[in-house]
Amino acid sequence: MTILVALTGWHVDSWVERLERLLPGRRVVRLGDAYDPAAVTYAVAWKHPPGAFRGLPNLKAIFSLGAGVDHLMGDPDLPDVPITRVVDDDLTNRMSEYVVLHCLMHLRQQRRYDAQQRAHMWEDDRHQPAARDVRVGVMGLGVLGQDAARKLAVMGFDVAGWSRTPKDCPGLQVFTGEAERAAFLARTDILVLLLPLTPETHGIANYALFKGLARGGRLGGPVFVNAGRGGLQVEEDILRALDDGTLMAASLDVFETEPLPDSSRFWDHPSVIVTPHNAAMSDPDSIIRLVARQIARFEAGEPLEHLVDRQRGY
Amino acid sequence: MTILVALTGWHVDSWVERLERLLPGRRVVRLGDAYDPAAVTYAVAWKHPPGAFRGLPNLKAIFSLGAGVDHLMGDPDLPDVPITRVVDDDLTNRMSEYVVLHCLMHLRQQRRYDAQQRAHMWEDDRHQPAARDVRVGVMGLGVLGQDAARKLAVMGFDVAGWSRTPKDCPGLQVFTGEAERAAFLARTDILVLLLPLTPETHGIANYALFKGLARGGRLGGPVFVNAGRGGLQVEEDILRALDDGTLMAASLDVFETEPLPDSSRFWDHPSVIVTPHNAAMSDPDSIIRLVARQIARFEAGEPLEHLVDRQRGY
Ligand SMILES: NC(=O)c1ccc[n+]([C@@H]2O[C@H](COP(=O)([O-])OP(=O)(O)OC[C@H]3O[C@@H](n4cnc5c(N)ncnc54)[C@H](OP(=O)(O)O)[C@@H]3O)[C@@H](O)[C@H]2O)c1
Ligand SMILES: NC(=O)c1ccc[n+]([C@@H]2O[C@H](COP(=O)([O-])OP(=O)(O)OC[C@H]3O[C@@H](n4cnc5c(N)ncnc54)[C@H](OP(=O)(O)O)[C@@H]3O)[C@@H](O)[C@H]2O)c1
Repeated sequence: MTILVALTGWHVDSWVERLERLLPGRRVVRLGDAYDPAAVTYAVAWKHPPGAFRGLPNLKAIFSLGAGVDHLMGDPDLPDVPITRVVDDDLTNRMSEYVVLHCLMHLRQQRRYDAQQRAHMWEDDRHQPAARDVRVGVMGLGVLGQDAARKLAVMGFDVAGWSRTPKDCPGLQVFTGEAERAAFLARTDILVLLLPLTPETHGIANYALFKGLARGGRLGGPVFVNAGRGGLQVEEDILRALDDGTLMAASLDVFETEPLPDSSRFWDHPSVIVTPHNAAMSDPDSIIRLVARQIARFEAGEPLEHLVDRQRGY
Repeated sequence: MTILVALTGWHVDSWVERLERLLPGRRVVRLGDAYDPAAVTYAVAWKHPPGAFRGLPNLKAIFSLGAGVDHLMGDPDLPDVPITRVVDDDLTNRMSEYVVLHCLMHLRQQRRYDAQQRAHMWEDDRHQPAARDVRVGVMGLGVLGQDAARKLAVMGFDVAGWSRTPKDCPGLQVFTGEAERAAFLARTDILVLLLPLTPETHGIANYALFKGLARGGRLGGPVFVNAGRGGLQVEEDILRALDDGTLMAASLDVFETEPLPDSSRFWDHPSVIVTPHNAAMSDPDSIIRLVARQIARFEAGEPLEHLVDRQRGY
């Protein structure tokens, strides 16, 4: 019973160590180690090199180390085994910290007050809207979107959400599918993107979408917040929309290319808040505990949790 | 029945107009206008010039245009009539926006990421604590403190509060009075000041208090947030504490002297976030509606709401 750790971009060794500590008695191997492919029963994956799971005849499940699985889905050689993803309170809470922080920064014009501080300028804005005057629209009402929407509503924002299928979220106005997308956008002052990256959602945040956001809202212009995936956004279109006033400001945690290239105009754009894909860092120990729990469930004949639907892609 | 408007610092005319609009048939006068002192039955006040209420034999009540009444209490000639203050959902929600925003900015190291953005630097902090790892202490559990504490708890922070008298706030650890102050401070990573300014609280945020805050917390050092009044803080002590590491950072909305003088070191301090006393701007129309409602209650023989206790000073 070997567990294969297939990662790029993260410290492989620390993950191997954590697994060994939590699952003593199992063999844990890295890609490139010498191991018997027929012995590999589980794989733990984050941005694995495509093809890494080829020729593993006894592979029983793949555990994504992230909430998203777009890093897996692009692999044409992905074996037909169950895939689970991370659903973790710690990760969810951190994402909501990010979303509420950025919605409040835009509401309270934090960048303007930062600039005033640098200029030693004491000037308030008597016409600042309250949260209840500002309509936030959360695209994606999954684990993360629902928690963020609930907390935004506690802060007083006027919140609605959009998802593929209907949702029963008390107190939240839910729009569903393509048919209701335009209506959702038309009532949205701050758009928060918390969708998974799939063939359907790729490039969804484009100029046409920004054009569909509410005009005449109390903030002075629409704001775009992306904490989902860089592949959801068309960066050229964001810049064009910021330049021509279609968007007033943006908070971007994710990018088409990460790390964000030095040449990107986002870095110096006065209306853009850049963070290095850290909206929801998860605690590696708690992620590994999730993986161990899944293995225990699986071996006890219980169903795996947080299974990915291969058809939908998330 | 004349209403006297006694303000400094705000646009007097706009308040007079609002009152005239909402209470047609009443005479509304400014300080300095020609009016019969015996006709003045109500006064509407914000930082009135001391003595402004002398010689008004038929004055029945004073309505503060703010939540705080320290601007009234300093006047030795304050007539012995009921004083009401502003308690307003809009103001309360705005204060909680400010408090949650600033606690999240410190939690998520927003100033650090702002600097990294300016430097085109992509670097995350894998050891960033989650809100649940950070203990916020709210000093003052009145209308504002209780709302802020509740919303901070929803965001995941580990919240406690301190007040003069015991409070029944479900889910909140409440410390009371001088006897429990040290214990409250010792478990506090982010201190949020939402006290009224009274002789007891004047200068309460001094070096000794900062020394009493938790050491070894997950943030790396204590953070001080003052959205109460500038008179609560000793600014020299804040600077000394920031310089010697007793404090790690601060968010200050209020100051000993306002507007904050150009020479203040706070403006350029890398660890201080300055805002121009706008943590909780209230909507003038809704404040004036409160005043009109109080007058209506008073004249119907009903008790005034949100009465100030002259003895306590708030
Ligand atoms: N920046 C970061 O640090 C970070 C961290 C973690 C996660 N993320 C990203 O956040 C994403 C969301 O995570 P989650 O746990 O909330 O996922 P989830 O529970 O799977 O929820 C996804 C939501 O998106 C909706 N959706 C998917 N495709 C759609 C479509 N074509 N049209 C309309 N709605 C669609 C789903 O609708 P239904 O409910 O109707 O299926 C669901 O509400 C992840 O996929 C990941 O990419 C980013
Ligand atoms: N920055 C801004 O824009 C802004 C806007 C509005 C208000 N404010 C300030 O915020 C303050 C608080 O407003 P509020 O409406 O929450 O007031 P409040 O309802 O009167 O509450 C005051 C709280 O402070 C506590 N307190 C007072 N003196 C104390 C002492 N000596 N020791 C311990 N606790 C003491 C009180 O304890 P008990 O409950 O036991 O009496 C109460 O919990 C106002 O006075 C004003 O100065 C600032």
